[in-house]
Amino acid sequence: MISYSDILAAAETIKSHAVRTPLVESPLLNDKLGARLFLKCEMLQKAGSFKFRGAYNAISNLSEAERANGVFAYSSGNHAQGVAFAAKLMGTHAIILMPEDTPKIKLQNTKEYGAEVITYDRYTESREEIGVAIAEKNNLTLIKPYDYEPVIQGQGTVGLEIIQQLQELGLTPDMVATPCGGGGLLAGTSIAVHEHAPDAEIFAAEPVNFDDATRSLEIGERVSNDTEERSICDAIVTPMPGEITFPILQKHVTGGLVVSEDEVKNAMRVAFQYLKVVIEPGAATALAGFLSGKANITGKIAVAVGSGGNVDPALYSEILSTPT
Amino acid sequence: MISYSDILAAAETIKSHAVRTPLVESPLLNDKLGARLFLKCEMLQKAGSFKFRGAYNAISNLSEAERANGVFAYSSGNHAQGVAFAAKLMGTHAIILMPEDTPKIKLQNTKEYGAEVITYDRYTESREEIGVAIAEKNNLTLIKPYDYEPVIQGQGTVGLEIIQQLQELGLTPDMVATPCGGGGLLAGTSIAVHEHAPDAEIFAAEPVNFDDATRSLEIGERVSNDTEERSICDAIVTPMPGEITFPILQKHVTGGLVVSEDEVKNAMRVAFQYLKVVIEPGAATALAGFLSGKANITGKIAVAVGSGGNVDPALYSEILSTPT
Repeated sequence: MISYSDILAAAETIKSHAVRTPLVESPLLNDKLGARLFLKCEMLQKAGSFKFRGAYNAISNLSEAERANGVFAYSSGNHAQGVAFAAKLMGTHAIILMPEDTPKIKLQNTKEYGAEVITYDRYTESREEIGVAIAEKNNLTLIKPYDYEPVIQGQGTVGLEIIQQLQELGLTPDMVATPCGGGGLLAGTSIAVHEHAPDAEIFAAEPVNFDDATRSLEIGERVSNDTEERSICDAIVTPMPGEITFPILQKHVTGGLVVSEDEVKNAMRVAFQYLKVVIEPGAATALAGFLSGKANITGKIAVAVGSGGNVDPALYSEILSTPT
Repeated sequence: MISYSDILAAAETIKSHAVRTPLVESPLLNDKLGARLFLKCEMLQKAGSFKFRGAYNAISNLSEAERANGVFAYSSGNHAQGVAFAAKLMGTHAIILMPEDTPKIKLQNTKEYGAEVITYDRYTESREEIGVAIAEKNNLTLIKPYDYEPVIQGQGTVGLEIIQQLQELGLTPDMVATPCGGGGLLAGTSIAVHEHAPDAEIFAAEPVNFDDATRSLEIGERVSNDTEERSICDAIVTPMPGEITFPILQKHVTGGLVVSEDEVKNAMRVAFQYLKVVIEPGAATALAGFLSGKANITGKIAVAVGSGGNVDPALYSEILSTPT
């Protein structure tokens, strides 16, 4: 089980390379909402999402021999970029397996960070099977995207910083929500938040049709999504909560905020208009959960994690120019 | 003349309300440029631009009686929002005169901060004349947008933070550029930067046809722009450098970076893709100046101030979706 002190250790490991991303709010938006709503801006993290934290912590924790052999990761795109850039900083070779329909910006950036990219069809092929074969053949260490303790510890530094940044303002959160795919960000964040604010409600934000964490938490066991479904929230379209992450979610997470595609798009526009940051669809689910009233933030101090900003300009302009 | 210690005093005055905005960089972009290029993110400032700094400092410096009577400002939109929000925080009534063709987002936000807004035609009417009449009639104190010492001192805190944030990274700037309208931001910033980095080159970034500061610095006296011209850089479309700001620019500023509309649009797209922040056209001129090679940043530590992010979504999506 991961402890709070593991997250403190990860914070120490990543501090010279990770950005302490700002926690922003908009007085105008707060007035409209009757709440104090903060966005933790992980789109401003290195490689454009929180994934760099876990990737850097995980690769740092390898032995020198493992780092010399290289690392492998499968990822829809943000973990890919995080691993690629962290590997580059540590002089380690990285091979990354990515879905062929991943946003162009994610594919291109992963290559530009110097990683070797292999693509697959996410709807017909198993990334785990292809991945194990590649990793074994090349003697690479697999850096799993969420079901991996060093990764969860690294992502937990998001929660740690939220608490620290609120403390600097003399505040304690009433509610914290993070986007939830496999649950690495949420698991790590929930440990740090719970340590300092045990009464805070913590939420998993998911898009409709990919609400596996929400349903799993309700039922008390891990359930999966219908693989026929599609979502614009490419960053968090995962089959089910992780084996390691789920027990952590069960311990600390209140429940889910399940948002529609229109609610996600609206949250992206609100982030543009009031907060001036670029947020990608999957990363906007937590903000969308609060804005759409899936949890009632009236009179509360609420924090949504904006987990990344790697969105293609064509999709972003389309969303911006067509209010729903 | 404004001194460095005046800027330190302004920093103290505004610190409990202004955001210490992040200084961001992109490793990928740096690799492409062969430089270390930072963006000072004033779009993340309260009310979406650096203008809040000067406005808050100026209203704080009024007597209680003056604050009770209220304040007046004329502005293309960002100073308007800065004054409106600062006035609101201090319980002061604000009347703001704005051009009728100002971006909707600026007009709407100024009203939402509680200011009373009056519009005029910026191409046929004199805002100074209309303004003096309104201010005198209502016994209001005019908060000038740039030719006003408390405002310049407040804007100078941008430069102070740039220096402090670079120091935290063990760095000193080789080059600093800010967008330049009347020159308040540049004048204040140049005083703070010069104090700590006397060898740094400091630039005024302006759009073509509104390069009054650049030409004035070359000639050694204040010259104006052709009033028939138009620009998408609405925030910095001013007739000529200020009486107070110009001597400061002459003392500390190396010269101008004059950028085309296409270069501005490209800088907005780069900020979207690599830095994940929303930057408005006028605020992107400094970034555009460096990206387009108007000053050679190869091998240098360069800082561009991104002075604001108040841009209408329709224009932003159009710029994002049509690369030039």
